Amino acid sequence: MRIAKSVQALTPYVPGEQPKSRNVVKLNTNENPYPPSPKVAQVLAGYDLDRLRRYPDPVFMELRRLIAGIWGTVPERIFVGNGSDEVLTVAARAFVDDDEAIGSCDPSYSLYKTLAAIRNVPFVPSPLGPGFSWRAPVVRGAARDVALFLLTNPNAPTSIRYGRDVVADFAKGFPGVVIVDEAYADFADADCTSLATAPDNRNVVVMRTLSKSFSLAGLRLGYCIGPEDLIEAMYKVKDSYNVDAVAQDVACAALSDLDWMRANVAKVVKTRAETAAELRRRGWDVPESQSNFLFAKPAHRPAAEIFEALRARGIFVRYFPGPETGDRLRITIGTDTDMKTLLTALEELDK
Amino acid sequence: MRIAKSVQALTPYVPGEQPKSRNVVKLNTNENPYPPSPKVAQVLAGYDLDRLRRYPDPVFMELRRLIAGIWGTVPERIFVGNGSDEVLTVAARAFVDDDEAIGSCDPSYSLYKTLAAIRNVPFVPSPLGPGFSWRAPVVRGAARDVALFLLTNPNAPTSIRYGRDVVADFAKGFPGVVIVDEAYADFADADCTSLATAPDNRNVVVMRTLSKSFSLAGLRLGYCIGPEDLIEAMYKVKDSYNVDAVAQDVACAALSDLDWMRANVAKVVKTRAETAAELRRRGWDVPESQSNFLFAKPAHRPAAEIFEALRARGIFVRYFPGPETGDRLRITIGTDTDMKTLLTALEELDK
Repeated sequence: MRIAKSVQALTPYVPGEQPKSRNVVKLNTNENPYPPSPKVAQVLAGYDLDRLRRYPDPVFMELRRLIAGIWGTVPERIFVGNGSDEVLTVAARAFVDDDEAIGSCDPSYSLYKTLAAIRNVPFVPSPLGPGFSWRAPVVRGAARDVALFLLTNPNAPTSIRYGRDVVADFAKGFPGVVIVDEAYADFADADCTSLATAPDNRNVVVMRTLSKSFSLAGLRLGYCIGPEDLIEAMYKVKDSYNVDAVAQDVACAALSDLDWMRANVAKVVKTRAETAAELRRRGWDVPESQSNFLFAKPAHRPAAEIFEALRARGIFVRYFPGPETGDRLRITIGTDTDMKTLLTALEELDK
Repeated sequence: MRIAKSVQALTPYVPGEQPKSRNVVKLNTNENPYPPSPKVAQVLAGYDLDRLRRYPDPVFMELRRLIAGIWGTVPERIFVGNGSDEVLTVAARAFVDDDEAIGSCDPSYSLYKTLAAIRNVPFVPSPLGPGFSWRAPVVRGAARDVALFLLTNPNAPTSIRYGRDVVADFAKGFPGVVIVDEAYADFADADCTSLATAPDNRNVVVMRTLSKSFSLAGLRLGYCIGPEDLIEAMYKVKDSYNVDAVAQDVACAALSDLDWMRANVAKVVKTRAETAAELRRRGWDVPESQSNFLFAKPAHRPAAEIFEALRARGIFVRYFPGPETGDRLRITIGTDTDMKTLLTALEELDK
């Protein structure tokens, strides 16, 4: 008693380092280097304190209508959470029984394994193909069926996107629920969101976040789109007031200014192409990124060594040890100045 | 598959009605009628958008240090959640195994039963004594031990406070974890918080919220204090970034202005005494309230009838049908003007 047995054994998820100093080049947690829409500042500046005094709308209808409008669907297909983290936690409650399992590709977002541990069900990893390419997932492990498959697309940390047809085919033959985590989809050439809004969709839930393309990681706002019966089940098991009043209002402001987001995304995509080209010119292995980061294998020195040397110079990237990930660095795309600083430092390290 | 079996059977918690119109007297969800500290407006007005662009501090150290200072304890004893709702959800993960149960007094906060259903463990209600008084809890039901006992103090909806010694005695003999939900404690003559900060505390977690006394229901900020090993277990199973940047900063501002909160509480307590006295004068049964609401039994007409008649006049209170609660209305203490409007309406209804 006191602490649950499953929790005693649990290894917690460790988020990327958040250095206190602002005097660093921070390319380690996939934040957007550009600020959120000025409409966000407007909402906060004149904020009506009476909205803080009262409970927020527990089912955030205004925000859901706005999201539904963007994707050409109905509010009944929209669920909103305190970040995608919470959307996933709620999904793990709604779609997984105690005797089932959670699966994802491997490598993929490392939080998924922790999510399964917290839900106290096994995690079933599905190895990817060569060069982190798509391979049909394993949907049964240790005598249990995978009831929820978490599919980051574009994938993290690999930066690679799977095609819409591949995802549709997999979902079609899968008896459980597929969550397509499209955290990075605004940085990609195409997405799978239409699978979620399709009238005959039975089991695909597409998840989006305002953390990356909308430059609002600090706000904690994620949402998902799916079949009405699945979305209804999520509302049944969420906390009563899971999205606060400020987050609802700021999200509405940001989602009303898609042009601002798209302009920032265009800048990131341009910088991404230039940075990837330069690293490849220097002999690094850099898969074609469809996200706001590169998953890069250094040419001449081990990734761990470069990670530490950059850190000592106030440049933060994320290090992924092998073997699945092949000893790589995940480098968030910052401003052109950030990337110039990085490339200069890497050049000096190569000397 | 698709929707979990336990979720299919689940009846969701229904929060109090949030009428859209502001042209109502809203005495149904225990909100504070006075605005939050002006320091809150200052924080929002000049908000640094760079704090929204980046991920928030996942373990909210500044806020924890501030809370620890208020209660004379250390940050290692403080956990913070996206509202008390989330603190409870995290506790249900951290302190309850799949073959255990969750308990609370009956009547108490009706969310607790839903919380157990979402956690997919049985809920064991403990009947109160006469006049909603303390009675030793039932800590075993249906061949399962209660691992987590949720003790609202002052209790809701009864408004009655249990003494510190009674709570301490119960916790001492209880092998599981006791969460003392002190959502209303700022409106009471005394509290149990020192049980949580005591060096030899083994199993008492005291929970506080900014929703009521700090007038910040819209912010979603709850926290708890407890033994370090229990608090550590809660951090292990929380979502990675569960408290957003704005909520962390606004909470710091509000908690730095305790005088403002205390002045508002003093006004509510004065209005409470006057309203209770007037209702008693009219023959209503009104237990001694230690919260920001009254749990009142009408003198001449059924509570349900009065509830509907008030609603038709734009006055919202909460109706609790019997038998445990004895056909009562839970009336939030509003401003003096709100209560005058209520009392005048009730007088007309009594004619």
